[in-house]
Amino acid sequence: MESNMRKYLAEFFGTLMLVAVGTGTVVLVGLQTGPLPVALAFGIALAAGAYAFGPISGGHFNPAVSLGAAINGRITWGEFVGYVISQLIGGLAGSAVVWAIMQSVGANATMIKQVGFGQTDYTAPVSFIGATIIELILTFLFVLVILMVTSKKASASSVAAPMIIGLTLAALITVGVSVTGASLNPARSFGPAIFFAMFGSATALTHIAAYFIGPLVGGALAALVAKYGLGSEE
Amino acid sequence: MESNMRKYLAEFFGTLMLVAVGTGTVVLVGLQTGPLPVALAFGIALAAGAYAFGPISGGHFNPAVSLGAAINGRITWGEFVGYVISQLIGGLAGSAVVWAIMQSVGANATMIKQVGFGQTDYTAPVSFIGATIIELILTFLFVLVILMVTSKKASASSVAAPMIIGLTLAALITVGVSVTGASLNPARSFGPAIFFAMFGSATALTHIAAYFIGPLVGGALAALVAKYGLGSEE
Amino acid sequence: MESNMRKYLAEFFGTLMLVAVGTGTVVLVGLQTGPLPVALAFGIALAAGAYAFGPISGGHFNPAVSLGAAINGRITWGEFVGYVISQLIGGLAGSAVVWAIMQSVGANATMIKQVGFGQTDYTAPVSFIGATIIELILTFLFVLVILMVTSKKASASSVAAPMIIGLTLAALITVGVSVTGASLNPARSFGPAIFFAMFGSATALTHIAAYFIGPLVGGALAALVAKYGLGSEE
Amino acid sequence: MESNMRKYLAEFFGTLMLVAVGTGTVVLVGLQTGPLPVALAFGIALAAGAYAFGPISGGHFNPAVSLGAAINGRITWGEFVGYVISQLIGGLAGSAVVWAIMQSVGANATMIKQVGFGQTDYTAPVSFIGATIIELILTFLFVLVILMVTSKKASASSVAAPMIIGLTLAALITVGVSVTGASLNPARSFGPAIFFAMFGSATALTHIAAYFIGPLVGGALAALVAKYGLGSEE
Repeated sequence: MESNMRKYLAEFFGTLMLVAVGTGTVVLVGLQTGPLPVALAFGIALAAGAYAFGPISGGHFNPAVSLGAAINGRITWGEFVGYVISQLIGGLAGSAVVWAIMQSVGANATMIKQVGFGQTDYTAPVSFIGATIIELILTFLFVLVILMVTSKKASASSVAAPMIIGLTLAALITVGVSVTGASLNPARSFGPAIFFAMFGSATALTHIAAYFIGPLVGGALAALVAKYGLGSEE
Repeated sequence: MESNMRKYLAEFFGTLMLVAVGTGTVVLVGLQTGPLPVALAFGIALAAGAYAFGPISGGHFNPAVSLGAAINGRITWGEFVGYVISQLIGGLAGSAVVWAIMQSVGANATMIKQVGFGQTDYTAPVSFIGATIIELILTFLFVLVILMVTSKKASASSVAAPMIIGLTLAALITVGVSVTGASLNPARSFGPAIFFAMFGSATALTHIAAYFIGPLVGGALAALVAKYGLGSEE
Repeated sequence: MESNMRKYLAEFFGTLMLVAVGTGTVVLVGLQTGPLPVALAFGIALAAGAYAFGPISGGHFNPAVSLGAAINGRITWGEFVGYVISQLIGGLAGSAVVWAIMQSVGANATMIKQVGFGQTDYTAPVSFIGATIIELILTFLFVLVILMVTSKKASASSVAAPMIIGLTLAALITVGVSVTGASLNPARSFGPAIFFAMFGSATALTHIAAYFIGPLVGGALAALVAKYGLGSEE
Repeated sequence: MESNMRKYLAEFFGTLMLVAVGTGTVVLVGLQTGPLPVALAFGIALAAGAYAFGPISGGHFNPAVSLGAAINGRITWGEFVGYVISQLIGGLAGSAVVWAIMQSVGANATMIKQVGFGQTDYTAPVSFIGATIIELILTFLFVLVILMVTSKKASASSVAAPMIIGLTLAALITVGVSVTGASLNPARSFGPAIFFAMFGSATALTHIAAYFIGPLVGGALAALVAKYGLGSEE
């Protein structure tokens, strides 16, 4: 039990860091000079968190990754629940950090409402179905890579795996950031959406379902392909 | 046989990922902020695929690499045929992913025909011979690095090799992307060209030969230099 | 004693390199094409210094990191004093390198005064408290990652740790560089501030306290969370 | 003897690759979107060459690095001569590759004379002394890192060293590329200068001395500091 609390704390801090650094870069830098600053901020924050906290919890920081891990028996379903709760709270804490930074730069409520919290969203002509499919595809590729590079057969597990997982996230964000924001992670979308809603956006939560359904289905499919197609759990 | 099917599946998924992420970035990001987003998307996708699927198949995802491997006796010629077929189908699947993303963003047939599928091409004053030579040179350097960093003597094989191979691709794309699109890989050119032809481009396949001949000859030459000049197979 | 002198020399050269390369990039490149050139210059210089000099001294190059290490018993308080002195002198030497480069490009005193030395600063609406909080938060995340990836439990310590620590610095600079300059390191702010004051800036040192208090408090908090929350010293 | 020929061939191919990829990026991409494409092309090409050919020759590809290695007894002075000759020829071959690419894109002699070969140069107000000092300082830092990360004490030698050496080159190029072109390597400056002279530039070779003296003196000083200051050879 004590050991599980430490795992949940590790997931909390890792998700906090991912959301704070990634969405902080969305808010303070944006896409003006291309997608790389945002993509690399998310990717490096994930890799850093996975090196730092991964030895304790496995370093998911993402309910879609935890779902894939649970389906393939790497964590129990009890742990899955604890992980997801820790990740959602961690995402909220990450957005609280972004809020604190915006307070520190003197942004008032009106400005915060305009700038937002680096939330993910989509606009027409992208539909709910379209956004969900894109999030599903990108998360499928992401979780497939994660489950394969951390499988028992993988030779590079502990040393190279966190780095390549982080960079894979960066590459997938490069592809999708201009369309759906490239969340690939319900916890990454959850924190900013809640904060954006609390600070006055009426539509902050109207599209959130795409960022839960797409990544979770994509992660589950990846788990099945990794296990039954590619033998990741043998 | 069963084990070979898994290798082919690994080559399929790796090539799918390379083409989906790389050409997806060409289509959705492009070269407006310089060559790095496209170059790193291809490079990271290759490295991720090589870490994820390389322990199963070796992680070629490229007929020119498989040709070099076959010439130097690392795979059999029978496997070579299976690898290439898997890679070409994987490339088609990668373009299908890009097509699905474009459908999701609401692009109609006319827009898709304009935007394309991230296909490689060259325009005057670059000639067929010129494009072929550039693809040959860049692929020669690429496959030479691959064969050396995965040779028996190489100290960094399993941990660092996929990363450096991916980054090498990124650097070579940085050089050549503005001239020929820097394919270095018949499967990477094949998928987008077929899709672009299916969606109405009359000239999608007129230049495709340069992207088969250049990389395959370059890969073959690299295999000979690696083996007879630098002793990669000793 | 002799061995401690070598440690101090290692900290001196590492901090010199960090400040010379990082602030040299601030001065000669700046943020015109986005935050990545500056962020990566600092990050790579830190990683390079940690690989090169880390086996001798641990590779802190930053009083906030040394404070965290001292709190968690990784260095003695006597060593802490020696490390900080070496780092401050190294920061001055790094700014001397930037000065030498500016002399070499023919910059006169007036130009140097305008361009500055890559010093960190903040302007309204960012207040002293605001800047201190941002530096505190970013340094907390930075030192937390450092202490975790170099803990006894971390599997990737010697091979991957310096790289991920450097890249983490790069990502955190990407977030904060437009607000406070993202120092996260009193020695990195000290050298340029002193040189900027010597070359005629009346306000070079008025804001320096934020860059000592924020990082040192953030580093100390990270040490406590790493040790008591996440068991880094067990 | 036979074994030495293979070392020289390794140095030849590594320098060819460094110059072809690096100066190819200077010519075909340039600094329009910031220094990172050029810096990373050089850095990745160096890292790739060091992983690929380093197990054979040590992976210098640079007379200043070989000088430091010779001073510290890592190679013999006889080998030093062979290495430098191989590197200068490799640099010429790298520029020949760039020339072949320019031919392939249909550039005629007049255009080639205008575009150049990615040669390094400096213009007023930067003087010969100024350029030499900048090249000296940057090469000192570069060779110091190389000698330390490949010393017997370094824990990360074979796996991480080539990557961090390449990235260090990238960071140092980021600092100095706008001032002197940031050569840090006589062989990298030699090949393009000779080709630029052959294709009609009257001033291609007037500044070349700075790119021999600066790097060689910087490399020699780094060897002394590494050995006597930091105990790299103990």
